[in-house]
Amino acid sequence: MTIWLDGTCATLESARLRVDDRGFTLGDGLFETLAIRDRKVLRVAAHLARLRSGCAELALPLAYADDALAEALTEVAAGMETGTARLTVSRGPAPRGLKPPEKPSPTILITAAPTALAPPAPAAVVIAATTRRNPYSPLARLKSLNYLDGIIALMEAQRRGADDALLLNSSGLLAEATAANLFAVIEGVAVTPPVADGALPGLMRAAVRDLLKAEERSLTPADLETASEILLTNVAGIRPVVRLEGRPVGRGRPGPVWASLGGLILGRERP
Amino acid sequence: MTIWLDGTCATLESARLRVDDRGFTLGDGLFETLAIRDRKVLRVAAHLARLRSGCAELALPLAYADDALAEALTEVAAGMETGTARLTVSRGPAPRGLKPPEKPSPTILITAAPTALAPPAPAAVVIAATTRRNPYSPLARLKSLNYLDGIIALMEAQRRGADDALLLNSSGLLAEATAANLFAVIEGVAVTPPVADGALPGLMRAAVRDLLKAEERSLTPADLETASEILLTNVAGIRPVVRLEGRPVGRGRPGPVWASLGGLILGRERP
Repeated sequence: MTIWLDGTCATLESARLRVDDRGFTLGDGLFETLAIRDRKVLRVAAHLARLRSGCAELALPLAYADDALAEALTEVAAGMETGTARLTVSRGPAPRGLKPPEKPSPTILITAAPTALAPPAPAAVVIAATTRRNPYSPLARLKSLNYLDGIIALMEAQRRGADDALLLNSSGLLAEATAANLFAVIEGVAVTPPVADGALPGLMRAAVRDLLKAEERSLTPADLETASEILLTNVAGIRPVVRLEGRPVGRGRPGPVWASLGGLILGRERP
Repeated sequence: MTIWLDGTCATLESARLRVDDRGFTLGDGLFETLAIRDRKVLRVAAHLARLRSGCAELALPLAYADDALAEALTEVAAGMETGTARLTVSRGPAPRGLKPPEKPSPTILITAAPTALAPPAPAAVVIAATTRRNPYSPLARLKSLNYLDGIIALMEAQRRGADDALLLNSSGLLAEATAANLFAVIEGVAVTPPVADGALPGLMRAAVRDLLKAEERSLTPADLETASEILLTNVAGIRPVVRLEGRPVGRGRPGPVWASLGGLILGRERP
C-alpha cells in the first residue's frame, strides 16, 4: 500500500515515525477522512479548508499548499475504485512536556485503503453509559487525534451487542455517534444536534442537513424514542439505525428518508 | 539517548514507530511519567499498578511482567542523576477505523531525559477559558495519550503571559492544572479537588494529600481567590503558584505549607 509521509511516497510497512512525535506521545494533531468514489477523492477542497482552520486554531503550521496535498491524496488513492483516504497532521517530534516547540516540524501523513461499495448495514445502537462528549472543549469541533472517548464508547457498544454507540454530552443531550453525526426524523421533521451540543461539524452532516432541510436543535434520549428514523452520517455514507437500546426504531427497518438520500448513502457527492 | 521499544534497546534517533500505530492515529493508549532522583526511578510499583489498572479498563493487554518493565526503566534511566522517565503503551498497529483489533500487539515505549534538580519556579497561572475537563469521561481518571485539552490550555496560558493554566470541569468547578494536580490552602486547611470533579488521581497528589491531611472537596474560582497558598503537584515536584489571574496569591511568594513539603518539592519520595 502506498502512503505519503512528509513529502515522500513510501509503503505502509516501510514508513516510520519518530517515537517522540507529539502525535504519538500526546495526541497533538488533527486528521481528515476522505471518501474515494469512482476513482476520485471527494470534497478535497472542503476537507483541506476544515483541516487548515483546525491547524490555525492549534497553531500547527502546514508546510504544504492545498495543491500539493491534493496531488498527494490523488497519488495515494491511485488505482482505488472505492476507498477511504486519511490525511493526518501532528505537531511532529519534540522533547518531553506539553509545551509546543517554538518551531514545530509537523508530520503529515496520507494513507488510503480500498473498501467495498455497499450501503452501510442497518445498525443497532446504544447510548453510551461509559463516557460523554465534552462540548466545553474545542476538540468537540475538531477532528483531533484524541479519539479514546469514541473508542471507549464503541467497545461498550460491542460488549452490549450493538454496532455503535451514541454519545451524550455533559448536559445529557445527544451529541453524535462514535465516528458519525446523528440525525433523527421526529414527527416528519429531520433534526440534528447543534455543534454547540458537541457534534463535530461533519461535511456529510452539512450535506444531509441542507438536503433534508433539517433543524439543528438539541435532542434528548426521550426525543430519540419518538423518532421514526435515525441516521448516522459520515463521509463513508449514511447508515440507518434500526434498533435503539434494544427496541426497534420506527418499523425496525431502513425508512423512506434514508432511502431518499440516494448516492449520499454510498458516500457519493450527490443524492 | 537510550530508549526501550517493545523489548529492545535503541536510540531516540534510530527507533521508529509504524505509521498505523493507534497511539498515533487515534491516541489509543496510556502513559506514566516517573521521577528519577539520586539515580533511582521512584515509585515504580505504584506507577505500574496504575498503568495496569488503566490498561485493564481499556482492554489493552500488556505482554511484559512488572519485573521486566522495572528492569527496562532502570536500563533507560541508567547514568541519570536526576531526570524524568516515561512509559507509554499504545494499542499498536491496526487497520483504519475505531474498532480495536481482536488481538492487538501493543507498542511499549520507555524514554528518559535528564533534568536539573532545582525547586520548581514560582508560577503565575490563569484559569483556562478555551477548554474544560470532562469529568464524565473515564479519561479524566486515566493518563491517556489524549492530551490536546491540556496543550490548548497551556498555549492559552502562554498567550496570556502566564506559566500554566488551571482547568475547570463542565460544571465550572476546578479540576487540575494542565499537567499537575491542584491544592489550595484556605483558612489554614489544605484542599484538593476530588477525582469526581475531573482531577487525575496523581501519585504525588496522594502523597501531598496524606501529608497535609488535605480535604478532598470541590473548589470554585471564588474559593481560590481566598487561598493563602496554591500548589501544583506532579511527580516532578511541587510548584508554588504566586499569581492567579494577575493577582498575587497570599503574599505573592511561596508560603509555609509549600516549604513544609521539603523533599517532595524536588520530587523525592519523602518530605
